[in-house]
Amino acid sequence: MSENPKKQLHLGAFLFQVGHHIAAWRYPDTETRGLLQHEFYEHFAQTAERGKFDMVFLADTLAVIDRSGTGIKHTVTIRPEPLTLLSYLSGVTDKIGLAGTVSTTYHEPYNLAREFSTLDHLSGGRAAWNVVTSGRDEEARNFSKSKHPEHDKRYARAKEFVDVVTSLWDSWEDEAIIADKESGLFADPGKVHELHHKGDEFSVRGPLNLPRSPQGRPVIIQAGASLTGQHLAAQTAEVIFTAWQTLEEAQRFYSSVKSLAIQYGRSPEDIKIMPGIFPVIAATEEKAQKKEAFLQQLVVPEVGLSMLSSSLGVDLSGYPLDGPLPELPELAQINGGKSRFQLVADMAHREGLTIRELIYRVTGARGHRTIYGTPAQIADQLEEWFVNGACDGFNIMPPYLPGGLEEFVDLVIPELQRRGLFRTEYSGSTLREHLGLHRPASKYHAPAATQAEHFA
Amino acid sequence: MSENPKKQLHLGAFLFQVGHHIAAWRYPDTETRGLLQHEFYEHFAQTAERGKFDMVFLADTLAVIDRSGTGIKHTVTIRPEPLTLLSYLSGVTDKIGLAGTVSTTYHEPYNLAREFSTLDHLSGGRAAWNVVTSGRDEEARNFSKSKHPEHDKRYARAKEFVDVVTSLWDSWEDEAIIADKESGLFADPGKVHELHHKGDEFSVRGPLNLPRSPQGRPVIIQAGASLTGQHLAAQTAEVIFTAWQTLEEAQRFYSSVKSLAIQYGRSPEDIKIMPGIFPVIAATEEKAQKKEAFLQQLVVPEVGLSMLSSSLGVDLSGYPLDGPLPELPELAQINGGKSRFQLVADMAHREGLTIRELIYRVTGARGHRTIYGTPAQIADQLEEWFVNGACDGFNIMPPYLPGGLEEFVDLVIPELQRRGLFRTEYSGSTLREHLGLHRPASKYHAPAATQAEHFA
Repeated sequence: MSENPKKQLHLGAFLFQVGHHIAAWRYPDTETRGLLQHEFYEHFAQTAERGKFDMVFLADTLAVIDRSGTGIKHTVTIRPEPLTLLSYLSGVTDKIGLAGTVSTTYHEPYNLAREFSTLDHLSGGRAAWNVVTSGRDEEARNFSKSKHPEHDKRYARAKEFVDVVTSLWDSWEDEAIIADKESGLFADPGKVHELHHKGDEFSVRGPLNLPRSPQGRPVIIQAGASLTGQHLAAQTAEVIFTAWQTLEEAQRFYSSVKSLAIQYGRSPEDIKIMPGIFPVIAATEEKAQKKEAFLQQLVVPEVGLSMLSSSLGVDLSGYPLDGPLPELPELAQINGGKSRFQLVADMAHREGLTIRELIYRVTGARGHRTIYGTPAQIADQLEEWFVNGACDGFNIMPPYLPGGLEEFVDLVIPELQRRGLFRTEYSGSTLREHLGLHRPASKYHAPAATQAEHFA
Repeated sequence: MSENPKKQLHLGAFLFQVGHHIAAWRYPDTETRGLLQHEFYEHFAQTAERGKFDMVFLADTLAVIDRSGTGIKHTVTIRPEPLTLLSYLSGVTDKIGLAGTVSTTYHEPYNLAREFSTLDHLSGGRAAWNVVTSGRDEEARNFSKSKHPEHDKRYARAKEFVDVVTSLWDSWEDEAIIADKESGLFADPGKVHELHHKGDEFSVRGPLNLPRSPQGRPVIIQAGASLTGQHLAAQTAEVIFTAWQTLEEAQRFYSSVKSLAIQYGRSPEDIKIMPGIFPVIAATEEKAQKKEAFLQQLVVPEVGLSMLSSSLGVDLSGYPLDGPLPELPELAQINGGKSRFQLVADMAHREGLTIRELIYRVTGARGHRTIYGTPAQIADQLEEWFVNGACDGFNIMPPYLPGGLEEFVDLVIPELQRRGLFRTEYSGSTLREHLGLHRPASKYHAPAATQAEHFA
C-alpha cells in the first residue's frame, strides 16, 4: 500500500471464442482456426499476463445454441470446457488468475470442489469459480431434463451447492498434513473433517480427498443481477461480474450490493464489482466508430434478429427492423437470463431504440457497455466509473482476438499505469493477492482461544 | 512398419500419488511434499515422455478411504482430480498420451464428453478416458447416495454412458467446420447432428458444443475383469488395464477378450491389453528384494490389515497374522472390486499364503504382478509375457516417485530398446498413433457410396 497509495482497479480478460462480437470470427485479423488450437489460448493468456491483468475469465454454455437454424450456420457455437482449458493454461502462465464458469444446475459439488481445488494447487493459488445456474432449455435437454428448472429452485440449489463446496474446501485444515516419514504419521485426523451435509438437494459426507489449497478457497465469482442473485452474491461472492450501460445504474448497483454485504456481516472490501466493457480502440474516435460499423456489417441479419428475439423472449421476425419493439413479456415470465432481459428492455426504453439499433447492441457488446475511442479516451471512461463509485474494476471483452486484447494491453494498460490506476507489476502470487481479498480460515478451524477453553 | 519389423510393446506410466506402494511416502527418496506441487507432476510426465511411454495413466477414487481410522493417519488419501491434472500436463508435454479415470456412476455424459474432447483438442490428440463404475460406499456418500449402486445397474449405466459420449464426440463430422469469412458460413448444419438419445439412464439431445477432436474420439480404456466387464470391454474398449499374477492367467484372459472382440465384430488388433506391473529394480536381484523388504517394513501394521480386510470384504483384525485366511464371502456378495477380490483370494489359495504374506502383496503391488531384479531381468520378464501372447504391453507402477520411474526410464527402457521391443522415438503425434489404433469415422458420417445412392 505504501508504494501505491492510490487505489487501483482490477481487470479481467474475458476469453470468449475468438472475440466478444458475434461476427468476430469473420473479422479479417481474427485467428478463427485458433479456436481449436492450444497456441491461440496460450497466446491470449500470456498476453493478458503481460498486461498484468488480475485474471483470465471464461464464460460457458452447456449446449449448442442454434437460434432457429442461424447459430450453427453463421456463428461460433463451439465452447471448450472451461476447467480443462484453465488447467492447460495454468501450465503456460505464472501469475495470472484463472477464472472459470461452472453451472451448479448440471454438476455435482464433490466433483467441482475437487476440480477447482486441484487447479488451485497446480497453479499456486490462481483459481476462481464463476458460479452460474445456467439459463436455457437447450442446456437442460443435454442433462436428462426436458426444461430448465425454475429460477427460485435453481438459486436454492446454487446456495446449497456453494455451501457444500466451501465446506469441502475447508475440510482439511491448513495444518492437517504432517507427512512425518519417521513416525509414519501422514495427517492429523483431528484436522480432517467430515461434513455430513444433508440438504434438500445434496447429501455429502466428505471430507474432500484434497488438502486445503493455496488460497484456502478458490475465489468465488457471481454474475446474477436479479434480486435473488444480488442476495446470493452479497452472502457468498467475492467478485461480481455485471453489466451496466450508465454510470448511475452502475453506482446504484454498487452501493446496493455493498450495503447488502454489510447486512450479511461482511466488509464492502470483501466484494469486488467488475462490470463488463466492450472496448473499440483506434487512433481516433471516428476510426473506432468505423471499426465497429465494419464489424457490424459482418453480422448475418438473421443472426442478429434471432439473438435479440432470444434475449427478449419474443419472436421479432415479423416486425419492421426500423420500427420500435412490440410489447414485451413480463419479467416474471422470463426463466433464465432475467437480468439480460431487463437490461435490453431498459436500453430500448431509455434510448428509444429501433429493432435494428438494438440488434447492434446485442451482437457486439451483448448487453455490456461499449466504449469507443483512443487509448486515452478509453482510459478516461474507465477512470470515470472507477473514481465515482461505480465499480472496483472491469472485465474487458475484446471485440475480436487476439488483436482486441493486444491493443488493450499495448495501448490502454500503459495509459492506466501512467495515471497510477493499474499495477505495473504483480505484487503477489495468488489471485486473492491480486484482488486484495483476504485468505479465509477454514470454518472447521477452532481459534486458539476456543481450543484453550477445553482445558479451562 | 518397415523400420520396425518386430512387434513392439506399449507402455503406460501409472501416476499414483507418490508411488504405488502404500508406504511410498515414507521412503527416504520420495518427494512426498511434491503431492501438492505442480513441479512433481511435470517432472513425472516429462520423465515418462523422455522414456517414450505411450501414456501417463491416472487412477482415481472419489472419496477419502480412511480404512477404520488408519487411512488419513498413515497413508496418502489425497487424489488430484485426473482431468484437471492431465490438462495441466498437456501444457508441459508434447507427445505423450494422457489417460485419466472418470467414473460413469458419478458424472454426466455431456460434461465428460466436453472435458475429454477439450483435452484432445488442446493436446493435439493425446487424450484417453479410463471408464470405471467406481467401487465403494464411501464414494456413493459423497454423491447424495447412501450405498454404492449394484454391479449390474452400474454396468448398464456405464454402457449407455459410453454410447452417449461417443455419439457426442461424433456429433460434428470431421468436415463440419467451414469458417468461410467471406460468405459468413461457419459450419455446415448438415454435418452437425443432434442425438435425441433417450435411454434408461439419460436423455441427451446434443450436439456437443465442440467439433470432432484430433483423434476422432479420445481412446477408451477399461479395467473391469468381471465377465460383465469383459463383455463391455470387448465391445467398447481400445485399451484394457488389467491385473494378473501368472503367465497362464494372463494368456487365458488375453485370448478370451480378443475372441469376444471378434464376436462383437471387431479385430483383435483394436484392443490393446496392458496388465499392471510393479517393478523393483536394483543392481542385483538380492538388492531388489532387500529394497522391497525395506519398503515393506515401512507399512504401519494396522494399515496393511485394514487394506487386506477391505479387499476381501471381511474384518481380519481378530486373526493371527501368521495363520491362513478365514472363510471368505462368496463373490456374488462383493459389490465393487469383484475382480480385485477374486485376484487376492486366488493368490492366497494358489500359493497358500498367510495373512502377513498377503498383506505384503496388497500393500506393495496392490494385486498387480511384482517383478524384481536387474534391468535385464525385468526386461526378460516383460518380454516373456509379451512374446507369449499374454499382453500387448504393460502399465508400469513405480513403487516410489520420482525415483521408481527414473530408474525404469534410465535402466529398463534402454534394455527393451536394445532388444527391439520398444520404440526409440515417437513415430506419430497422437495417442492412437502411439498405440497403433485406427482413427474411427464419425458414426454420423455417411460413406460416399451411401451419399451417392440418394441421387441414384
